[in-house]
Amino acid sequence: MLPGTIQVIPIHGMAEIQPGDSIVAAVLGAAQAAQLAICSGDVLVLKHKIIAKSEGRIVRLAEIKPSARARSWAARWKRDARLIELALQNAGRVVRMSKGVLITQTPHGFVCANSGIDVSNVDGGTSAVLLPVDADASARRIMAGLRRKLKLHIPVIIADSFGRPWREGLVEAAIGVAGLKPLRDLRGRRDQHGYTLHATAEAVADELASLAGLACGKFERVPACIVRGFCYQPGRGSVSQLLRPPERDLFR
Amino acid sequence: MLPGTIQVIPIHGMAEIQPGDSIVAAVLGAAQAAQLAICSGDVLVLKHKIIAKSEGRIVRLAEIKPSARARSWAARWKRDARLIELALQNAGRVVRMSKGVLITQTPHGFVCANSGIDVSNVDGGTSAVLLPVDADASARRIMAGLRRKLKLHIPVIIADSFGRPWREGLVEAAIGVAGLKPLRDLRGRRDQHGYTLHATAEAVADELASLAGLACGKFERVPACIVRGFCYQPGRGSVSQLLRPPERDLFR
Repeated sequence: MLPGTIQVIPIHGMAEIQPGDSIVAAVLGAAQAAQLAICSGDVLVLKHKIIAKSEGRIVRLAEIKPSARARSWAARWKRDARLIELALQNAGRVVRMSKGVLITQTPHGFVCANSGIDVSNVDGGTSAVLLPVDADASARRIMAGLRRKLKLHIPVIIADSFGRPWREGLVEAAIGVAGLKPLRDLRGRRDQHGYTLHATAEAVADELASLAGLACGKFERVPACIVRGFCYQPGRGSVSQLLRPPERDLFR
Repeated sequence: MLPGTIQVIPIHGMAEIQPGDSIVAAVLGAAQAAQLAICSGDVLVLKHKIIAKSEGRIVRLAEIKPSARARSWAARWKRDARLIELALQNAGRVVRMSKGVLITQTPHGFVCANSGIDVSNVDGGTSAVLLPVDADASARRIMAGLRRKLKLHIPVIIADSFGRPWREGLVEAAIGVAGLKPLRDLRGRRDQHGYTLHATAEAVADELASLAGLACGKFERVPACIVRGFCYQPGRGSVSQLLRPPERDLFR
C-alpha cells in the first residue's frame, strides 16, 4: 500500500435494522462475519437511516392527517400530501416552498428538502423515516459502544444525502459527528510559498460522509463503511460546528 | 482486500507545475517514481490549480488596477482590492456581495466565492490563479493523453474547493469531468422494499472530487490522487450535468 492511501471498506451483510436494535452489535457482527477487523485509526461512517430506524423514528403515512395547506400544495405539484404534512410538522422553519420543492430548516439546523424525511428503503412506501432527534448524541453512543467492545477510539460520522443550491444531484453530508474535528482549520497556516491562508477550513466530516455515497450506494443494503488511513484530528466533534450561524449566511 | 473496497491513492512527488507543462507527463512521472501502476478502472482526480497553472491562468496582482467599486468594497471589508477587481472581471454575474463575501456565478456556471480565484499555493501572494477556461476540455485532453500513453480509459475529474450556503467549511467539488457519468441517476429504480425512487440522482463526480480533499490536503504538494475500485458508469461526462438550470433553482 502506498503511503497516504485511504481505504473505504463497505460493511456487507448487515441485517435490516428494527426499532430497538443495537447498531454497534449489527456493525460488529457483520464486520466479524466479513473478517473485517476494525482497527485503531479507522472511522465508522453510517447512513442515517439505520440510526433513525433503530431509534424508532418511523411514521406510518396512513396515520398522518394532512392540513389544507399541505393538501393544496401537494395537489398542485403532484406530491404526497401526507409527506408534505410530516415535513412541515418537523420543520423549524420553511426556507423555500416553490416549484414542487419544499426546503426547510430542521430543529437541528440542517437546511434540506422535506425536513430530511424519506420513504425510500423503509417498507415500500407506506412509512417514512424521520431524522434522528440528535445525531451527534447517536454518534457518541455508538462510539462509546465501540469503545466498550473493542477498547478502541473509533470516531463515528452519521451521513444523510442532501441536495444543494446551484448543483444537481445529492451528496452525502454529515448530520452527526463524534470523536473527530469536523473542520480541518487551516487559517493562519502558510502554504509552501509562504502565503498565509485566510479563509480555509475544510469540512472533512462532510467529505468523509461522501465516502458513504461512493462505497455504500443506495441499493446494496450497505449502510456502513469503514474509512481507514485518513489522518483525522481527534476531538469531541459535533455537527453544530458545520452549521453556519445565520448572521454569517447570505442565503437564508 | 474486502469486496467493494475503494482505495484513494495520493500521487506524491509531482514537480511544481509551470505554464506549458504537461499534466500527463507530471502525473505519469510521479506515479512511476512512486511505483504506482495506473490500472484499468482507476479514476484520476486532480486539483484544479495545477491545470490552471499549466494553462498559464496566472495573473500578477501588481498589474491589476482596481475600479472604484472594488476599492471601496475591499476597504470596507479589509479585502485585497486587486483580488476583488479580478473576481468581478471574471464574474458572469454577482450573486451576493455582502458581509465581506463576494459570491459570483462564473461564465462556466459555477456559483462560488471570488469567481474561483485564489492566491494560495501560487507564489506567496503576489499572483492569483484563475479557473481553467474550460475544465471539461482540460479533463478530456488529459484523459486523451493518458489513453495515448497507457492504452487505458482513465476518467478524469478536476476538483476545486467550494464553500456552501448554510454549512461551514469548504468541500472539494468537480469543475471538470471526462470519461464517466457525473450523476448516478437512480430515478425509477426500486429499492429492496419495492419502493420506486423519485428524486434520487447522486452527484458521484462531486463525491469523487471530495476524495481529493481527504487524500491530497492543502499543504502536502499532492495535487492528484487515483481512486481505485469505484464502479463508475462510463460516459463522455461533463460538469454541465452537475449545474442546475436557473429555472429549477430556488436560490439565485
